[in-house]
Amino acid sequence: MNLSCFDGKVITSKDNPSVKLFGKLMTSKKTRMQYRMFPLEGVRLVFDALKSNAPVRRIFITESALEKNREKLEEFDCSEIDFTCISDELGDRISGTDKTQGIFAQCSFTERSEELGNLKKHGRYAVLYQLQDPGNAGMIIRTADALGLDGVIFSESCDIYNPKVIRSTMGSIFRIPVFHDIPVDDIFLAMNNAEIDTYAAVVDSRAQDIKNTDFNNGGGIFIGNEGNGLPTEISEKCTYKITIKMSGNTDSLNAAMATGIMMWELMKFE
Amino acid sequence: MNLSCFDGKVITSKDNPSVKLFGKLMTSKKTRMQYRMFPLEGVRLVFDALKSNAPVRRIFITESALEKNREKLEEFDCSEIDFTCISDELGDRISGTDKTQGIFAQCSFTERSEELGNLKKHGRYAVLYQLQDPGNAGMIIRTADALGLDGVIFSESCDIYNPKVIRSTMGSIFRIPVFHDIPVDDIFLAMNNAEIDTYAAVVDSRAQDIKNTDFNNGGGIFIGNEGNGLPTEISEKCTYKITIKMSGNTDSLNAAMATGIMMWELMKFE
Repeated sequence: MNLSCFDGKVITSKDNPSVKLFGKLMTSKKTRMQYRMFPLEGVRLVFDALKSNAPVRRIFITESALEKNREKLEEFDCSEIDFTCISDELGDRISGTDKTQGIFAQCSFTERSEELGNLKKHGRYAVLYQLQDPGNAGMIIRTADALGLDGVIFSESCDIYNPKVIRSTMGSIFRIPVFHDIPVDDIFLAMNNAEIDTYAAVVDSRAQDIKNTDFNNGGGIFIGNEGNGLPTEISEKCTYKITIKMSGNTDSLNAAMATGIMMWELMKFE
Repeated sequence: MNLSCFDGKVITSKDNPSVKLFGKLMTSKKTRMQYRMFPLEGVRLVFDALKSNAPVRRIFITESALEKNREKLEEFDCSEIDFTCISDELGDRISGTDKTQGIFAQCSFTERSEELGNLKKHGRYAVLYQLQDPGNAGMIIRTADALGLDGVIFSESCDIYNPKVIRSTMGSIFRIPVFHDIPVDDIFLAMNNAEIDTYAAVVDSRAQDIKNTDFNNGGGIFIGNEGNGLPTEISEKCTYKITIKMSGNTDSLNAAMATGIMMWELMKFE
């Protein structure tokens, strides 16, 4: 990447239109949906995006951060990225953290993320239905990446492009297919087409113990809202109902942890 | 509980000695260690402590919170608890949250928590060595409670009485034995006495796959620091080395999630 364009112009005003848009992308889901773009902040996330060939459209970098990261940036061929150098003060102002690293990016939604299309035959997927907490969403995406799932599908859940979600995925959002805002009927249809059995995760001692569940043909595990679980009309539509039998306090399994354990069992049969 | 003592005196000053001590317990590990006490905040946590007969020594309650919770409080026999009514303004001031529920408690360390003593023969324990993140510590305690472990042991790790840890345990800290600041040699000795095999969790493809590990005789699983894992001198002391074989990005398994999956495998043999 040729960074010579930086020699000279430094934006200092929060009223600069690009800076203003970035600020809105940080705080407003509506703006993210309208522009089909989401914001990134921090050295690790921005470089994870570049390494993964994510559709990065713009990078904002402070003068100090440019000095520190110039060599690393020059390793990438990013001819389609707009670079904008900003003052350190402006960096502090647009940051969502207490102590900014001074590097920000604007990334397009991937085309695929909003359309389920064809799933992998007998693939292995986690489906989050009405999941609300951004920290949980991020941790689930991160764990799915580690365990090697074929993808994570969100339906009626929190916005996966919320900066909190993105931050807590630790870059996994760029490494594993993540689908969002998918109507639940489309999910059942796509799973059926790909010959993937559907499993409803429930808290119900009559459901099948996940320890004894055979995922040899892959599977799509549906997990519901943190407080309420899956609505009956969704769990009834799934082929199987599965549960984590607990010896201790059943209230004590957080949604991300329960999903992690279920994904672990799903992947054991690979 | 007789709450008639409340009719009258309301503390409004942040310079009141009890209020001052509580404030210090919220922020200083040193003060917590010195007084062997830790602070609680919030309706759920305080009532979890009362329900679990935790050694609660003092409750601060704001005038508004008293009105809302009087009936619930009267269900408990807490003759040994000092009650202090404080103004709503003072409640806002001592709170560690943005929007306080106005109920706070001061709880003693349980005698047991600082001494390992006898472990359960062939018991099942998680051992956290040099774990640093309070959110991870809390989630591990919470998951251990759900899965029914015999206890969680911390050595050279973050302070389990940090309000962030306590909050993220969601009350599990009162339901499962948690030991803290235990010298690692004492842990090996106690495990040996209780005939518990020790397992070092490592990221090493030559280690035994946890999927194929037989925990029929119980086990103590040692997990290390978030960034560095277990030091060699600790993993070498364990009877076995075990690992989570990953198909995806190995960086992507957070310490709490990895510990959760390992505890799940440990408990499957119960």
